[in-house]
Amino acid sequence: MTGGIGSRFWPLSRKSKPKQFLDIMGTGRTLLQQAFDRFSKIIPKENFYIVTSSDYVSLVKEQLPEIGSYQVLSEPLRRNTAPCVAYAANKIKTINPKANLIVAPSDHLILKEDEFLNQINTGLDYVASRKVLLTLGIHPSRPETGYGYIQTGEQVKFKETGNLFHVKTFTEKPDPEMARILMESGEFYWNSGIFVWSLSSIARQLEHWLPEVSLPFRNGLSLYNTPHEAKFVHKVYEEIRNVSIDYGVMEKATNTYVFSATFGWSDLGSWESIYMHYPRDARANAVPAARTLLENVQDSLVYSRQEGKLIVVKGLDNFIVVDTPDALLICPKDETQFRQLFNDIAHNHEEFV
Amino acid sequence: MTGGIGSRFWPLSRKSKPKQFLDIMGTGRTLLQQAFDRFSKIIPKENFYIVTSSDYVSLVKEQLPEIGSYQVLSEPLRRNTAPCVAYAANKIKTINPKANLIVAPSDHLILKEDEFLNQINTGLDYVASRKVLLTLGIHPSRPETGYGYIQTGEQVKFKETGNLFHVKTFTEKPDPEMARILMESGEFYWNSGIFVWSLSSIARQLEHWLPEVSLPFRNGLSLYNTPHEAKFVHKVYEEIRNVSIDYGVMEKATNTYVFSATFGWSDLGSWESIYMHYPRDARANAVPAARTLLENVQDSLVYSRQEGKLIVVKGLDNFIVVDTPDALLICPKDETQFRQLFNDIAHNHEEFV
Repeated sequence: MTGGIGSRFWPLSRKSKPKQFLDIMGTGRTLLQQAFDRFSKIIPKENFYIVTSSDYVSLVKEQLPEIGSYQVLSEPLRRNTAPCVAYAANKIKTINPKANLIVAPSDHLILKEDEFLNQINTGLDYVASRKVLLTLGIHPSRPETGYGYIQTGEQVKFKETGNLFHVKTFTEKPDPEMARILMESGEFYWNSGIFVWSLSSIARQLEHWLPEVSLPFRNGLSLYNTPHEAKFVHKVYEEIRNVSIDYGVMEKATNTYVFSATFGWSDLGSWESIYMHYPRDARANAVPAARTLLENVQDSLVYSRQEGKLIVVKGLDNFIVVDTPDALLICPKDETQFRQLFNDIAHNHEEFV
Repeated sequence: MTGGIGSRFWPLSRKSKPKQFLDIMGTGRTLLQQAFDRFSKIIPKENFYIVTSSDYVSLVKEQLPEIGSYQVLSEPLRRNTAPCVAYAANKIKTINPKANLIVAPSDHLILKEDEFLNQINTGLDYVASRKVLLTLGIHPSRPETGYGYIQTGEQVKFKETGNLFHVKTFTEKPDPEMARILMESGEFYWNSGIFVWSLSSIARQLEHWLPEVSLPFRNGLSLYNTPHEAKFVHKVYEEIRNVSIDYGVMEKATNTYVFSATFGWSDLGSWESIYMHYPRDARANAVPAARTLLENVQDSLVYSRQEGKLIVVKGLDNFIVVDTPDALLICPKDETQFRQLFNDIAHNHEEFV
């Protein structure tokens, strides 16, 4: 899934080229390319399907030349993740109805790749012969208010794993006090939005909980992978409900399991998260910028990809400074502050978003 | 005099193009051009002599195409204002030994131009037939610590002026407490560095107080305005003492007078002074920038001449933000803070200065 508009990384990320298409951590590969590289270690390249907005199809093809055109699913409108999953599931059904699926966002950070892939592989083994939906839950390392949480129920024994559980409940993003309670309980995990399931399991659950999303896509089985696919999909998207797979299916289904993980994960959902995952200097500053002079600056992120430019900052505490050729952002690091600000940017300077 | 390097306006002003060559207030004319325009109303253009560093001769000619090459005096080395005055005075002596001189920096802001020119004219009348040195003193509007002060002595009657005084003392830049005392006394004026005197008066005083500066230039009377001038001047500058006309002559001479003025003057000596002379919005921000979004920002200067760029700032109080294509400055507005910072910029990133 690579259709997001990445507004939380303004001004680096823009609607015309959102964060998944950027090398936001300075690794030499964009987040989408990193996700592709990661899964390529266990999945043959012809088995990737990349769902994106029609606006980004050419960006996807440009960044992943290994991928054929038929592997890029173009969404004509934004309708959240349930239609995305329903579209992909139905299209893949016409190719291999016995497939198992990994559904993952393309813009996440995963630090311990081997652990991650091991877990994905174990997950695939688990779901292959069971009518279950599996989701990856992350051990919370802080009382984060930006994520949903998953409460674990009974533990499930499978091979040597000791971290597979039945899901008790899904919990919305908590307030700070509740986040602390959830974390301290030891029963709650961050909802990573990474799912593993068989095609038949998710198809059945979609049909049961979201028939109005599932059926329109099923009606086009003969049209996928033909010249008529785009027109058909466009018509479906025009009429379909906007709903997330979490809300529409996962939270309602009773056969959901969570595989709790510690592979160093972040959804890179805010400048603050970039700050947290970037190496920091002695004054706790993260400075992804070529030339800087910082004095009396602490706990701040100073970000620039303009190599020839000198950034001089004095006297800031807990700020983000992001400089791009056509926009400069200076804002308190707190995510909430930025979110409010971004709304005003979008409202007053739409052409820069 | 237009030889300064304008370090206090980094990053807008650079050694290669200091502030006098910039349209820093956004008027459409650079400070040098504004100074030329201003004096052009009372002085024929062939009577201008512009002393500058050899590095800036081409900039001067480019910005003032009305000026002939012989009117640009090139200083091969920086030796402060006394050698500058001695050079100009001796060169002008070969052209018109009866001349009266106005000596002025080219990078000052003057708001009430008519009052200024009236005063200059009255000053010229006063010095023409008297063996005196006249300086312009500015009514202090705040306890400024960045200027020297002039204490007035006995008042002098001349025409209708009521603001011409004998100078009692020159005072160095005061500390804040002293600045307050000087201002409240009503006897002290800011030293503007603008002088009016006859050629014969300044020549006599230079010879008396700074013979080691005066004589070398007098030895070349036959060489000025010949092809040998540059080589001669270079040799003099290599050996001459670095000394200001204030310290070397004005503070020692006994025939100095001050004409106290209220023509809206600033030496534009710091970002803070730009802030003070720029129109401010309801939150006391000065925003010389094409596109900005400020939230919870007050008492700050946000400066950019990059027209297509959006500057978004949240949560700054009493700061300066200056963005240029190759350098960004974010710093508390207080001039002292910037001065310390600039030393470190010059030390660590010399190529940006």
